Amino acid sequence: MCRWMAYLGGPINVGLLMFREDRNTIVHQSIDASQGAEPVNGDGFGLGWFVADSADPSRYRSTEPAWNDENLREITRTLDSPAWIAHVRAAIGSPVQQSNCHPFRHADTLFVHNGMIRDFRRIKRDVVLAIDPELYPQIVGSTDSEHMFFLALTFGLADDPLAALERTIGFIERAADRAGIADPVQMTVGVLTSEALLAVRYATRSLPRTLYHSNDLETLKRVYPDFEDLQMLPGDAHAIMSEPLGSLPGAWSEVPVSTAVSATPGAIEFRPFQPRG
Amino acid sequence: MCRWMAYLGGPINVGLLMFREDRNTIVHQSIDASQGAEPVNGDGFGLGWFVADSADPSRYRSTEPAWNDENLREITRTLDSPAWIAHVRAAIGSPVQQSNCHPFRHADTLFVHNGMIRDFRRIKRDVVLAIDPELYPQIVGSTDSEHMFFLALTFGLADDPLAALERTIGFIERAADRAGIADPVQMTVGVLTSEALLAVRYATRSLPRTLYHSNDLETLKRVYPDFEDLQMLPGDAHAIMSEPLGSLPGAWSEVPVSTAVSATPGAIEFRPFQPRG
Amino acid sequence: MCRWMAYLGGPINVGLLMFREDRNTIVHQSIDASQGAEPVNGDGFGLGWFVADSADPSRYRSTEPAWNDENLREITRTLDSPAWIAHVRAAIGSPVQQSNCHPFRHADTLFVHNGMIRDFRRIKRDVVLAIDPELYPQIVGSTDSEHMFFLALTFGLADDPLAALERTIGFIERAADRAGIADPVQMTVGVLTSEALLAVRYATRSLPRTLYHSNDLETLKRVYPDFEDLQMLPGDAHAIMSEPLGSLPGAWSEVPVSTAVSATPGAIEFRPFQPRG
Amino acid sequence: MCRWMAYLGGPINVGLLMFREDRNTIVHQSIDASQGAEPVNGDGFGLGWFVADSADPSRYRSTEPAWNDENLREITRTLDSPAWIAHVRAAIGSPVQQSNCHPFRHADTLFVHNGMIRDFRRIKRDVVLAIDPELYPQIVGSTDSEHMFFLALTFGLADDPLAALERTIGFIERAADRAGIADPVQMTVGVLTSEALLAVRYATRSLPRTLYHSNDLETLKRVYPDFEDLQMLPGDAHAIMSEPLGSLPGAWSEVPVSTAVSATPGAIEFRPFQPRG
Repeated sequence: MCRWMAYLGGPINVGLLMFREDRNTIVHQSIDASQGAEPVNGDGFGLGWFVADSADPSRYRSTEPAWNDENLREITRTLDSPAWIAHVRAAIGSPVQQSNCHPFRHADTLFVHNGMIRDFRRIKRDVVLAIDPELYPQIVGSTDSEHMFFLALTFGLADDPLAALERTIGFIERAADRAGIADPVQMTVGVLTSEALLAVRYATRSLPRTLYHSNDLETLKRVYPDFEDLQMLPGDAHAIMSEPLGSLPGAWSEVPVSTAVSATPGAIEFRPFQPRG
Repeated sequence: MCRWMAYLGGPINVGLLMFREDRNTIVHQSIDASQGAEPVNGDGFGLGWFVADSADPSRYRSTEPAWNDENLREITRTLDSPAWIAHVRAAIGSPVQQSNCHPFRHADTLFVHNGMIRDFRRIKRDVVLAIDPELYPQIVGSTDSEHMFFLALTFGLADDPLAALERTIGFIERAADRAGIADPVQMTVGVLTSEALLAVRYATRSLPRTLYHSNDLETLKRVYPDFEDLQMLPGDAHAIMSEPLGSLPGAWSEVPVSTAVSATPGAIEFRPFQPRG
Repeated sequence: MCRWMAYLGGPINVGLLMFREDRNTIVHQSIDASQGAEPVNGDGFGLGWFVADSADPSRYRSTEPAWNDENLREITRTLDSPAWIAHVRAAIGSPVQQSNCHPFRHADTLFVHNGMIRDFRRIKRDVVLAIDPELYPQIVGSTDSEHMFFLALTFGLADDPLAALERTIGFIERAADRAGIADPVQMTVGVLTSEALLAVRYATRSLPRTLYHSNDLETLKRVYPDFEDLQMLPGDAHAIMSEPLGSLPGAWSEVPVSTAVSATPGAIEFRPFQPRG
Repeated sequence: MCRWMAYLGGPINVGLLMFREDRNTIVHQSIDASQGAEPVNGDGFGLGWFVADSADPSRYRSTEPAWNDENLREITRTLDSPAWIAHVRAAIGSPVQQSNCHPFRHADTLFVHNGMIRDFRRIKRDVVLAIDPELYPQIVGSTDSEHMFFLALTFGLADDPLAALERTIGFIERAADRAGIADPVQMTVGVLTSEALLAVRYATRSLPRTLYHSNDLETLKRVYPDFEDLQMLPGDAHAIMSEPLGSLPGAWSEVPVSTAVSATPGAIEFRPFQPRG
């Protein structure tokens, strides 16, 4: 199990949203998550971010638990970003190493995954064979998540991210079916560029991991005029997160099962997620 | 909060007692302790051990969480030792760095501490001034625990460990009193040489951290003749641990509050622990 | 031995000056320094920086060799800073741990040191006793360098940095003299705030480590109008470095022995450095 | 470039041969190798060893430079082993992560490689397709070396190691030829079980990395009866190393180019190495 958070909107200080002590931040969830199968996500973490007016993301990833990484605190305290995504990891089998830390990156796209492909080792070779040979050498880690990302890139993630993810999961489910693996996919995924955020909540059969999206900030600001924290947030911002950051009524909604959420600054759209062949 | 375990007796495979999946081992307690204030002890760990016929201990310490340290698993699987002590750390303020990982070592002695000296920063200088100037330069970390160890060495830990610890805690409590710090000491400590194991459970006012000692193994073996795990243990062995390793009725007893336990192979003795000036 | 570099002037991209492949950057010097006693400075590194309009510095420090730290590359590629200082370490005795990585920091001041206090262990206690008890608890590492910094803070580094450093070195030399340590101090040090950079090159008796300062950039720009690299640098900038960054004739001058260099944007001043009692 | 050392013979203290200060040990070569293309091999290291009467090897691998790894020192000081192999790494492209540190391991076999497969990324997919699908999921790192090892396992390394390596290199050279890569293979490799050590020195066209084997110890002991270091070594021992450990005349011989050395306790055999289809 893992936990992740993504932000898109007007530039905001990253440290502010990652380290507030009285909030269920992503860093807090690294040591004491509330809603996951396991409370500890201490097997490394990563942060990917865009700076203003750039489509070229940077990353900071480490194998240390996020909760005691001094550098993460230092780096984010002066970092303002209009688009960023953070992930804390609970390893399931794959080694704890920097190349296995999310977000994964290709060109202008960042990718995170919470969940797993069941018995991935048994279908890994099929997946590898389906990945574009030009892309394949860029895989440097060993997780199911990174391979899922490169398969999605092969299927056109850069052009039509939702369709690419639907083909990716369809491919994996068929390969798993051939291998006799039941209920193979469990996931929430996040795909972030400087301009758009796509999140999907899906599992083949079981209940997928939790996922929440922030509600309209302009409305919330009018409802809570005295709520200082809220007023400082850019009005066009969206956050998507494994668990709600705070407990303000009306601030967060659960992403429905088998649903894709597409957000751009100031707009949000929901579509069904349907794996296909 | 931290958790620790010490073993003294006939040589035993260290990995066996640290990694059994169906037991509440010290490694299990690094991610999911039952009885502590906090379940996660993921801020580094350490193992100190003696090999047979040597009074010179070795150590393996790391800042990674014990639960995902492959090297610890590899090192202990072929390591047989008649005396060893392991510690998993939950840092309280001090940096997560190897020099702050227990056990601390001086000559033939290993030392671990679970607990804290409250507001240690305010009395650290007093403690430093009381430490033997010949010993002082050997302090390389920044924890209250390491300073406590070196103060105890100054007070004769090598010759009369119980008296030295009583003077150490007495000194700390008086310094804390002068500084207006209430209830300053919270501790279980373990002191191990190749021949003897001393453990103390104490707190100035509050309830000290939990501590358990194993009961007479020869008796247990007679009571449970069919219990394979038990029969393989050397009959003269003692284990002292923050939490019981297994759930065999009669196998473990809680160390009473303000009590010191002295164990040598085949013998165990309990004495009151009384800090003194 | 270590190597360091400091920059003060108009904001510049930090990664540009740290990673250019065809230059003798500080990162290059981590694996292959030219002028030091040892070519490898692989025992950790650190970067401290100010963002524009802030007097509050951030740090990134790691125990990995700088040359293979992906995060350093990622962090600096989008980091623009008007004042920053970087250090690559070759440990002499002290543990390789984050708290021993330079720059050290107190409030608005960053500090780096290349060199050593000979036999520091023998005078460490004297130094500790002389450090302001209010400051002492903030020491978290074990290096001679960090203690030198806190002694200088005790002697007024924030108000009159040169005088404070002269008293610091005077104190250390007298303590060393009492302990029978010959030629105790070997150093280049850098002290950086958001507004000023002070560098000192000094050794009690031997030849101090190398140190260079950049020459007047406006002049250089006129002399080399076609030199693109040069033209992009802010005209008021100063760099001070253990070894010259490039090989442009006239760009760098050696800091004379027993000399302090004080730089502010657009101005530079040289004074003799005289330890005093 | 990397450096490695393997030992096979009567049990010997591992620390003794890895850390002697006045010798060109493998740890010394991590910071200052004499004969390699690069003097620094600071991008991680690994040690694999057998204990007496066991065919099941253990490993200790770390991404830190070997020269400052305290744990390596601690672990090896009481470790006696009849068969062990150590490797210090200089990364060429692949991430510095534990899963990329040698030795690689499968069942009872350890494998190290110094050198490279040129432009491996361009033929990686071909190699992956040729690897036994049952073995493929066990690859957890991203180096050319690990893939070479698994290809050799596929070709029967466990049964006929020399033939398997010849087929492996033949396969790689043909794949490289199809991809237009000239002079693809540069290598010394070591393959160690509890009973046998195989080493190969080979490059497609250029001069391969250096490799040395120890000469007959019984003879050396008679020639140098007063040489204490030598007398303590088991008479049936063999060492194979990238660079000679000491400078005793007659102690080491260079392994010829395109040659395989097979050693068992007390016996050594040389054969030509001929890649084949």
